Amino acid sequence: MRIDILTVVPELLESPLGHSIIQRAKDNGVVEIYIHNIRDFSEDKHNKVDDYAFSGGAGMVMRLEPIVKAIESLTDQRQYDEIIFTSPDGEPYTQKTANTLSLKENIIILCGHYKGIDQRIRDHFITKEISVGDFVLTGGELAAAIITDSVVRLLPGAMGDETSALTDSFQDNLLAPPLYTRPAEFRGWKVPDILLSGDHKKIERWQEEQAYKRTKLLRPDLLDDE
Amino acid sequence: MRIDILTVVPELLESPLGHSIIQRAKDNGVVEIYIHNIRDFSEDKHNKVDDYAFSGGAGMVMRLEPIVKAIESLTDQRQYDEIIFTSPDGEPYTQKTANTLSLKENIIILCGHYKGIDQRIRDHFITKEISVGDFVLTGGELAAAIITDSVVRLLPGAMGDETSALTDSFQDNLLAPPLYTRPAEFRGWKVPDILLSGDHKKIERWQEEQAYKRTKLLRPDLLDDE
Repeated sequence: MRIDILTVVPELLESPLGHSIIQRAKDNGVVEIYIHNIRDFSEDKHNKVDDYAFSGGAGMVMRLEPIVKAIESLTDQRQYDEIIFTSPDGEPYTQKTANTLSLKENIIILCGHYKGIDQRIRDHFITKEISVGDFVLTGGELAAAIITDSVVRLLPGAMGDETSALTDSFQDNLLAPPLYTRPAEFRGWKVPDILLSGDHKKIERWQEEQAYKRTKLLRPDLLDDE
Repeated sequence: MRIDILTVVPELLESPLGHSIIQRAKDNGVVEIYIHNIRDFSEDKHNKVDDYAFSGGAGMVMRLEPIVKAIESLTDQRQYDEIIFTSPDGEPYTQKTANTLSLKENIIILCGHYKGIDQRIRDHFITKEISVGDFVLTGGELAAAIITDSVVRLLPGAMGDETSALTDSFQDNLLAPPLYTRPAEFRGWKVPDILLSGDHKKIERWQEEQAYKRTKLLRPDLLDDE
């Protein structure tokens, strides 16, 4: 899989995409990730990428031309399955979208910044608008990092232990059961007896019950979602 | 405001919290952000912070002791308003939570990693569990970055133009209206005539209509939320 990220603040993305599972996936050839600075595509002598909104008001708007050039420099080279724009008014991002995206070959993620981008980019180039949640961030860079992270960890070979991702929250519409590790007792706080019983069948049943109970209590909406 | 972040992969957080608005807010004394490596609190000679789950299965669990030590090293020094754990089964994070957190003085954010953390930490130390969305990430670091970013930009003095944050999406339960900047025409794609009219009252009314229309179309749930 190949992921191209377009941003005006590439330095924001350096460390989240340069460590841990993502870096390992890059090293192992599981994914190629390229971060492009939209500023490099500005024809303006000051590399200006923003301008005042026609509507007036506070906040700058990302200019259309450098973004068009950046996108076309990529689409001229190869076919892209999706050109994604990260925006608070996009389609809410869920594990299902992550699963779907993990099956694509080439995607572009355009990070919004400042007050937003010229609407014409959204109308004429973007194939999918994604919101990672109902909150406002300084820019779409963290959203792009989240999409990249959640997708890359699903790629075959990205994680050491393939079965680990499958038992994560959401993959079966259930939250994960509680977890415990050593010591069995700390300051009088004990792990549930059943986990020390060695009876794997019982433990498995207990985990299923706990996952269901927890989902019912905290996120009943997930259970209606089948 | 002071934000302490506890993590086993501090390098993931370097760049998202070291640039743009957040760095400026730190430089201006608007916020203090400290990133602590949980590994530094491990009494184990290999600085081991994870161990096998009592329940068996794939994935490691973050050990209780180093986390307790890390938390208490902070709570011994000062009062904390919240000790937050980032987890996919936490309370869904919204702009409302960001607004509330921006009024706190001291908060701790504990980042989950690996398969999760020992449940006893959640039972005995955590005051608030936050999920940034229904998807699974490599770790809670990106979630902590999102919380920090969305909160810090609300702090007085963090943003150049105070009014800019107030007109963002969600602050009034409406998505933002479409934005346009120069040129007025590009490849035959024109900005709406009204924005070029110079009639500020009309433009404002148009923006309100567009914001409402867009919200009604894309996120009608926000309108029921009053």
